[in-house]
Amino acid sequence: MTSSLRPFFAPKGVALIGASDNPSKLSHGILKNMVSYGYQGAVYPVNPKSTRILGLTCYPDIRQVPDPVDLAVIIIPAPLVPDALEACGERGIRAAIIISGGFKEVGPEGADLEKHCLEIARKHYMRLIGPNCVGTLDLYTGLNTTFIQGVPARGGISFVSQSGAVGGGVIDYLRDKGVGFSAFASLGNEADVTETDLIEYFAVDPNTRVITAYVESIRDGQRFLHVAREVTRYKPIVMLKAGRTEAGARAVSSHTGSLAGANEAYHAAFVQSGVIEAQTVAELFEIAVALDTQPLPQGRRIALITNAGGPAALASDSLAAHGLTLATLSATTRQTLREHLNPAAQVDNPVDMLGGAEPQDYAFALTHTLQDPNVDAVFTILVPQALVNPAEVAQRIVQTAQAQADKPVLACFMGEYSVGQAREVLHHGRIPMYTFPESAGYVLEAMANYAQWRQKSLLTPQRPQDCQPQEVKRLLKAQGERLVWGEFETRPILDAYGIPLIPGDLARSSQEAVQIAERLGYPVVLKIVSPHILHKSDVGGIRLNLNNAEDVRAAFSEMMAHIRARLPQAELVGALVEPMAPQGYEVIIGMRRDPNFGPLMMFGLGGIYVELFRDVSFRIAPLTRGDALQMINETHAGRLLAGFRGQPEADLDALVDILLRFSHLAVDFPALQEAEINPLLVRPKGQGALVLDCRIVLDENKNYNNP
Amino acid sequence: MTSSLRPFFAPKGVALIGASDNPSKLSHGILKNMVSYGYQGAVYPVNPKSTRILGLTCYPDIRQVPDPVDLAVIIIPAPLVPDALEACGERGIRAAIIISGGFKEVGPEGADLEKHCLEIARKHYMRLIGPNCVGTLDLYTGLNTTFIQGVPARGGISFVSQSGAVGGGVIDYLRDKGVGFSAFASLGNEADVTETDLIEYFAVDPNTRVITAYVESIRDGQRFLHVAREVTRYKPIVMLKAGRTEAGARAVSSHTGSLAGANEAYHAAFVQSGVIEAQTVAELFEIAVALDTQPLPQGRRIALITNAGGPAALASDSLAAHGLTLATLSATTRQTLREHLNPAAQVDNPVDMLGGAEPQDYAFALTHTLQDPNVDAVFTILVPQALVNPAEVAQRIVQTAQAQADKPVLACFMGEYSVGQAREVLHHGRIPMYTFPESAGYVLEAMANYAQWRQKSLLTPQRPQDCQPQEVKRLLKAQGERLVWGEFETRPILDAYGIPLIPGDLARSSQEAVQIAERLGYPVVLKIVSPHILHKSDVGGIRLNLNNAEDVRAAFSEMMAHIRARLPQAELVGALVEPMAPQGYEVIIGMRRDPNFGPLMMFGLGGIYVELFRDVSFRIAPLTRGDALQMINETHAGRLLAGFRGQPEADLDALVDILLRFSHLAVDFPALQEAEINPLLVRPKGQGALVLDCRIVLDENKNYNNP
Repeated sequence: MTSSLRPFFAPKGVALIGASDNPSKLSHGILKNMVSYGYQGAVYPVNPKSTRILGLTCYPDIRQVPDPVDLAVIIIPAPLVPDALEACGERGIRAAIIISGGFKEVGPEGADLEKHCLEIARKHYMRLIGPNCVGTLDLYTGLNTTFIQGVPARGGISFVSQSGAVGGGVIDYLRDKGVGFSAFASLGNEADVTETDLIEYFAVDPNTRVITAYVESIRDGQRFLHVAREVTRYKPIVMLKAGRTEAGARAVSSHTGSLAGANEAYHAAFVQSGVIEAQTVAELFEIAVALDTQPLPQGRRIALITNAGGPAALASDSLAAHGLTLATLSATTRQTLREHLNPAAQVDNPVDMLGGAEPQDYAFALTHTLQDPNVDAVFTILVPQALVNPAEVAQRIVQTAQAQADKPVLACFMGEYSVGQAREVLHHGRIPMYTFPESAGYVLEAMANYAQWRQKSLLTPQRPQDCQPQEVKRLLKAQGERLVWGEFETRPILDAYGIPLIPGDLARSSQEAVQIAERLGYPVVLKIVSPHILHKSDVGGIRLNLNNAEDVRAAFSEMMAHIRARLPQAELVGALVEPMAPQGYEVIIGMRRDPNFGPLMMFGLGGIYVELFRDVSFRIAPLTRGDALQMINETHAGRLLAGFRGQPEADLDALVDILLRFSHLAVDFPALQEAEINPLLVRPKGQGALVLDCRIVLDENKNYNNP
Repeated sequence: MTSSLRPFFAPKGVALIGASDNPSKLSHGILKNMVSYGYQGAVYPVNPKSTRILGLTCYPDIRQVPDPVDLAVIIIPAPLVPDALEACGERGIRAAIIISGGFKEVGPEGADLEKHCLEIARKHYMRLIGPNCVGTLDLYTGLNTTFIQGVPARGGISFVSQSGAVGGGVIDYLRDKGVGFSAFASLGNEADVTETDLIEYFAVDPNTRVITAYVESIRDGQRFLHVAREVTRYKPIVMLKAGRTEAGARAVSSHTGSLAGANEAYHAAFVQSGVIEAQTVAELFEIAVALDTQPLPQGRRIALITNAGGPAALASDSLAAHGLTLATLSATTRQTLREHLNPAAQVDNPVDMLGGAEPQDYAFALTHTLQDPNVDAVFTILVPQALVNPAEVAQRIVQTAQAQADKPVLACFMGEYSVGQAREVLHHGRIPMYTFPESAGYVLEAMANYAQWRQKSLLTPQRPQDCQPQEVKRLLKAQGERLVWGEFETRPILDAYGIPLIPGDLARSSQEAVQIAERLGYPVVLKIVSPHILHKSDVGGIRLNLNNAEDVRAAFSEMMAHIRARLPQAELVGALVEPMAPQGYEVIIGMRRDPNFGPLMMFGLGGIYVELFRDVSFRIAPLTRGDALQMINETHAGRLLAGFRGQPEADLDALVDILLRFSHLAVDFPALQEAEINPLLVRPKGQGALVLDCRIVLDENKNYNNP
């Protein structure tokens, strides 16, 4: 089946509604672009005021445009757009790009107009790009519905942008930089077609080898996750997310709430779906061009070949900063290089052939480093020298890389004036070229990470058999209107999902407290239970280390009296009696429901350190076992639990199991807005883990009686 | 007095020893450069094999070159260089640039040759640049002793490079990028003239407004610190340090040793001397051009003016990531903008004038944001739009900025093709132009940091009056040959510098232990004292929480017996008896002597966290009070000590005082190779701080009997 989005890039015929014969109008620029880049389909200007524009017959109305026409590009005042769309629908056109602004971005009236347009489109089974966008571009069909001046080179990169300006700026910048595009689309307000729709389209576009995107927000996060996880199995996606700064503080009632922002959700989504996250516009395309043109590396051992030490030092720093290593060249390679290169050359990695290095020296060193089994990728560096022609070096690098196409070869030719011709040669030879050596780190890291992602098996998270959603449902129903639940009320919820709790029971009197303590064994802890007290220790609602019946009795009475005096209005249900916690590591496990991505899970070191060091990691639920392990390993806490500096190794299996169960609980009950186990006590290996305290916050807008 | 380095940039006459008439030789390229960029002095080729080169009289010998000649550029085979230098000296030339390689960089023989050259130079009071360098360039005198093709634009940036290749690559890249240079020097092997010499020279060069440097190593770190601290009071220095990756592990016997690498020393030196540290080559010059052309900001509140939202979002992210804030525009500014701009424009910061923004809109918005007292700097963004001429916008930005020259104005014109003319306009109008919005963060942060540095008073660290260096000298002498000193031996050293210790005394028998314990008060701690035991807890050499005489007696005997059985060869002196430590924060204070910069001080959170989180900061001793406070505030530990989340505030005054005393100890006694107080217990405000454990390592090569 052909995608419904195909007409946006490869229509049989395109009509421009609002075409103008005035060269100072944007619509004139669009028409010019439509006929200037080799597009072979029909182009129909539509405008009742003209009869011919740019030598083309101009039609007064879209209904009168002859076949073939399967795409309408609309650039007329916003209030006129609904009628035009209606006419397109009647004419049988199933794809429209609304360039015009004046919709959602200008206020509520515009938003209504936009909604109206979408209704018309839906009625006619029509897909919409825009409104308020700069159109589409396909470097293979030659279609150009934008008013951007000029087009980039042809290649394998498709670019989806939620900002038309960023798209235009990038195209203007990259036109002659040796970065090849397959297609471009600007999304505008995304009334209909979203970044995820286009990722799906480019995933099967034969001309696209790498999908890049600039996004400011992803509305349907779960669908994005699902699609991106599939696509990245065979085609890389590189994305730049803008708006990483958190705007204002959110009202939160847990550590998780204060630490888990929107940015953490995006980052987690990218990691979990194999999407490569770029940090800057420049990085986005530096990474993409390498993925477009080069094979993936099998590992992180990089060889540097250079004609100068300084740039190689900068490249080495950047490799180390990005978790890559300088490959240790084999003795054979070093000896071969020693025998053939300048005797003063440095043949350990970085291979520094010194200023006089000739094109054949580059070819020789590249051949032998590529053949070295200790090398996963080669980064070649050239600084222009008076007596060596960079273009000839480029030519030899291209030839050598093509002869041994199994490992990636990248080039840094530092400069501009002296390396323009070399840039051309490298571009046509499909070797990515960078201006500065610092690119080595983030480009090769992205390639290595993506290669690793492709190797990873993607298991579907499965809810453990012994989880009891019916019981949780019952508990949630039973509690009535309360939104914030303390430890006492939350414990049975966790228990129903098989999450182990420290033993404990509710005592309503000092006598009951003693009975429970005798049953559990001393020493014990008392914790106040009250629907009106969330921060127990703040009100003196925790008594530790009670060693006998007398202590328990006294502590119970004393605590109740103390709190009753301090908070006369609070309903005091009683006290939880629990044994003192055994030895172990305190960690925090949390969940906050992200508006775009759903349940965002957090893991980190407990106690005061969680906020002091922000030593936390995030993933979107449900988690696979691999996700849970990665979450732990991403934090410093992970190193501690693994047995740092002679400390005992923690029971990671138990921790992972609890993370998985907690993530299923979050997925199964959308009424849970926030949930937190803090602390979870992780005991030494083989001894399990125990919830020491916990809470949940319910969403007031969710009918949690019917989750 | 004229600097002895002046002839390297402004000689009256220059001789090129080794000039060739063969255009394929480097020396021919140099001669061509010497006469191609407007240099007004005399140029003399020297070569016995030619009589005329490039129309200039060629002399067979430097001795025969007529006046004026005060600079020799030497490019002949290395073994011939000493004779040529000798001849230059006899001719009365006091400055020579040795371009030729074949010296220290090729091995011991070359190093001897280099040393010989330096001796000849010293004999003749001659200054040397090189050998193995690419020469010098002065954009104001027109002198060009390099073989680099082309020169950059003229401006206020001088560039010193320890890599000729990086220098050449940068010049090739920046030639037409609107970045103006005053001078360039490549340093090669630095036989004589170093980066610090040139910093001193450019500090008084009237054409240089910003000094930039690429360095791989700074040999005389203390001199660099001294010079850079002075220079940065009135002229900014921006540096890029390569080789940040630590090569191999060092043998270390303390936490400080394992955490305080060479890179930490460089970073500390830059911070303490007001040097701006760039992370990449591109950053180095993006920062420099802003400092060259713009006034310094008074704060960190930035206004963004843009014609598109996406790039402004990227700029905002980058500002936030670099500790800058989006200025809150005054109500007046917002109202004025609202009245005059496109009604759909966003007049809160970022000021988004939308795609149709005209040159006069930029001028208007820039005028009013610059006038707003809430704004410290303005970053203007333009994305090329079909109907607006970027060069005209540039022109208006230049005019507006010049009319209100007190706050910095920067520009990001995103693209290349459509903004080439605008780039020219901005360059001539002295407005720095960037291609991508992400530059906003690091450029403005560097400017704001530097402005703050200039405001800072630079006090000279003073040793507190009650420090007793004579006593430390006596103690060091008394200890004989031991290099690693444990707590017992180190305590009197710290005491002599007024650093407060937890009370304690040496017990040689269980009876003495009890006597000391009775005097100190229970509970107490026993710690083994042995010259052969460094890690006391590893051998069971610490006994905590001893509550009475019986416990002390038993613990002493038991500990001695246990250790004697385990380490029969160890000499057991006895045990330190100390009271149990009171409540407080455990921190670590350390010192490692860096080979280039001297005593490198470390501060961090104690316990297991120091290595888990690497939550440490570094400065070079001696410290000022400001340095010490900054060290503390740079770490997460600093937040903890300040009273994080309801924890008690720590006695920061006591901590600072101990840091200062410890830093003077390190400066006064070069025999101290490493020293560490770990933990130092910092008590709540007003209650002081106490050394709980400490050690020092002496330098085996230092005569520590005569420090």
